[in-house]
Amino acid sequence: MNMEKVNSMDFGEFVDVFGNVIERCPLIAAAVWSQRPFSDLEDLEKHFFAFIDALPQSGQEGILRCHPDLAGREQQRGTLSAESQREQSGAGLTSLGADERQQLAKLNAQYRARFGFPFVLAARLSDRAAVPGELERRLHSQPAQELRTALGEVKKIGHLRLADLLDADSSRL
Amino acid sequence: MNMEKVNSMDFGEFVDVFGNVIERCPLIAAAVWSQRPFSDLEDLEKHFFAFIDALPQSGQEGILRCHPDLAGREQQRGTLSAESQREQSGAGLTSLGADERQQLAKLNAQYRARFGFPFVLAARLSDRAAVPGELERRLHSQPAQELRTALGEVKKIGHLRLADLLDADSSRL
Repeated sequence: MNMEKVNSMDFGEFVDVFGNVIERCPLIAAAVWSQRPFSDLEDLEKHFFAFIDALPQSGQEGILRCHPDLAGREQQRGTLSAESQREQSGAGLTSLGADERQQLAKLNAQYRARFGFPFVLAARLSDRAAVPGELERRLHSQPAQELRTALGEVKKIGHLRLADLLDADSSRL
Repeated sequence: MNMEKVNSMDFGEFVDVFGNVIERCPLIAAAVWSQRPFSDLEDLEKHFFAFIDALPQSGQEGILRCHPDLAGREQQRGTLSAESQREQSGAGLTSLGADERQQLAKLNAQYRARFGFPFVLAARLSDRAAVPGELERRLHSQPAQELRTALGEVKKIGHLRLADLLDADSSRL
């Protein structure tokens, strides 16, 4: 898909295609459409990220709360978004043993209780072996710092999803 | 459901219950959770509406773009949210004849082309006979005025959905 095609989309098409660049936040893609035309991937993602950065803290926390737990209830119920399913599966998080799953569930619960949002990680840049350690490490962050870290992961996820949609090279991450 | 129950919800439960108070914008419910505890329905909806009012214009347009057309493609495909389905059905918009449907499709398209978002109306406060006339009337509004009018409809819809969820009297609308 090239930018000419993207810039010619009406808002319905645009939200259909880009609505889950930010997990379960089609509102953001729908808002970004106002900023067309876009010159390239970088320009397009700049508008997604600027929208996130301009939200009040409650809105930024809201974005995080629209994300599922890694290897959590939604994965077991089969209610993940297609993108999350692919990402968690690619990182090996859909084939954990009972012990690993339980360990992660416990850490996820501690994280949610401490910060008021779920642990968000760009799973495609990680794997099942690294996730518990990373979760434990971030569990000890200060809340303001952790909000920034988590939004950084949202942006990495968004970048990779946009690059997939536009068939671009995402290696510069 | 009383407010004690609402105030005891973790963010996952809260988004499950209130995620579609603003159509397809669970981000807003997820953000509002940060403002708990809530004293009553009015207090709760105040936070939903304040979030909408604080968004930049592109975000407000984004909310509108997450709404389906009345008697449009999504209704015919069966992909409306449960709430929209009930509301459009209650207003008689799911049982239009071919002529009425075509007339509305034409007006909806004109409206989208003029304003860059779909025609949003609290269908429960209207009916199939009144919708085309109201759409034609609003088609002639000035864009800034029409954005305000449309967001007012979003709030009416949100108020009615919240009142349903809380079993409250919504007659003060």
